[in-house]
Amino acid sequence: MPGVLYLIPSFIGFADKRLISQKNLEIIHTLKHFIVENEKSARLFLKETATPIAQSEFSIAVMDKHHPESEIKEMLQPVQEGYPMGILSEAGLPCIADPGNLVVNEAHKQGIKVVPLAGLNSLMMALMASGFSGQQFTFHGYLPHDKKERIRKIKEMEREAVKGITQIFMETPYRNQKLFEELVQFCQMQTRLCLASNISFTDEWIVTRNVGEWKKSIPVIDKKPVVFLLGS
Amino acid sequence: MPGVLYLIPSFIGFADKRLISQKNLEIIHTLKHFIVENEKSARLFLKETATPIAQSEFSIAVMDKHHPESEIKEMLQPVQEGYPMGILSEAGLPCIADPGNLVVNEAHKQGIKVVPLAGLNSLMMALMASGFSGQQFTFHGYLPHDKKERIRKIKEMEREAVKGITQIFMETPYRNQKLFEELVQFCQMQTRLCLASNISFTDEWIVTRNVGEWKKSIPVIDKKPVVFLLGS
Repeated sequence: MPGVLYLIPSFIGFADKRLISQKNLEIIHTLKHFIVENEKSARLFLKETATPIAQSEFSIAVMDKHHPESEIKEMLQPVQEGYPMGILSEAGLPCIADPGNLVVNEAHKQGIKVVPLAGLNSLMMALMASGFSGQQFTFHGYLPHDKKERIRKIKEMEREAVKGITQIFMETPYRNQKLFEELVQFCQMQTRLCLASNISFTDEWIVTRNVGEWKKSIPVIDKKPVVFLLGS
Repeated sequence: MPGVLYLIPSFIGFADKRLISQKNLEIIHTLKHFIVENEKSARLFLKETATPIAQSEFSIAVMDKHHPESEIKEMLQPVQEGYPMGILSEAGLPCIADPGNLVVNEAHKQGIKVVPLAGLNSLMMALMASGFSGQQFTFHGYLPHDKKERIRKIKEMEREAVKGITQIFMETPYRNQKLFEELVQFCQMQTRLCLASNISFTDEWIVTRNVGEWKKSIPVIDKKPVVFLLGS
């Protein structure tokens, strides 16, 4: 009988065992087999959980988005042999912005039981803290590189936000400042914009203001991880 | 100086302190003042956390979506007086599908620091476990009541799902079976549908199949909390 495939949330930057629930710790402490986005950060995470299993006993497969299906099948071999396995992202929830979903997809095809564990997730933490509606929302990931396309997208997202559908998006940190400038340039003065920066770090900073108010107090957000939200 | 407004995840159905991180417990144990969706479930949650503060010492304001702005301001009075406060939903993350976001919105207007804590969230747990792309996704909440409108919406969501934008939605539990039947009737055979039922319960059941496969093995999902996902 195959084992269970656990989807294990890791840290967002800040490594602290106190951020992990007792239930998750108990599950993690039973695991020797992992599929991970980054081996180094996975080993650091596992060390912080104080698992009783020695690092030398771990079997760790590293996933990327270019694996052919046959290699993904091979990665799941331990779970087919009956071992419980864990998927670990480099940060936060696995499968949300990493290739973990390809492994989970294959697991479903093989009839393997998939169990998601709860934990840190910058998108939902930003959404909760924005003050915007959580009844309906869209996560766009990264906006288009092309400036014309990006501005068209900003205006489209603003129209949806005004309808009450919260819009969540990101940018590569070194382009954050430029995106902020475009948002305040191309959105209406009364449109509400939330910046959620360094979530779960000690200098976490989450602020919601009208575009008109943001224009009067430009923040410095370059090179920081920021979740952007437009809403009402 | 005002206090901090903490957004506190509660349980999804199943009450167990081991589901809460040590960090969250430490914060919850400092709080006397709460704004909650449901007083009874909030008191049960707080009891399960083993907070050292007696139930008789709690000051609990109950929120609903019909509060005028003046009452929301009044609810935040303790935090303006310097006390840390917590917002608690009846289940899962606050502010995602409850009126908590109106309180957070007012807190931002008053310049109060808002701190989201991580925890159980059925939407993200379903998304992780679906095997679908987490790079882009939309949460639609409940689908339209009107059948024609609902079928139009199903077809529209299917088109987006095929583009790689995962579609997440829900239904009132007693209408789950009917929605499932409409999904397999109106979507293409090769479209992928995930049902994520009873998340975090002991009988959690999360399965992704093509519509064609679902047609051959109809599940019984009536009266259970189910998150539906279309994706690729």
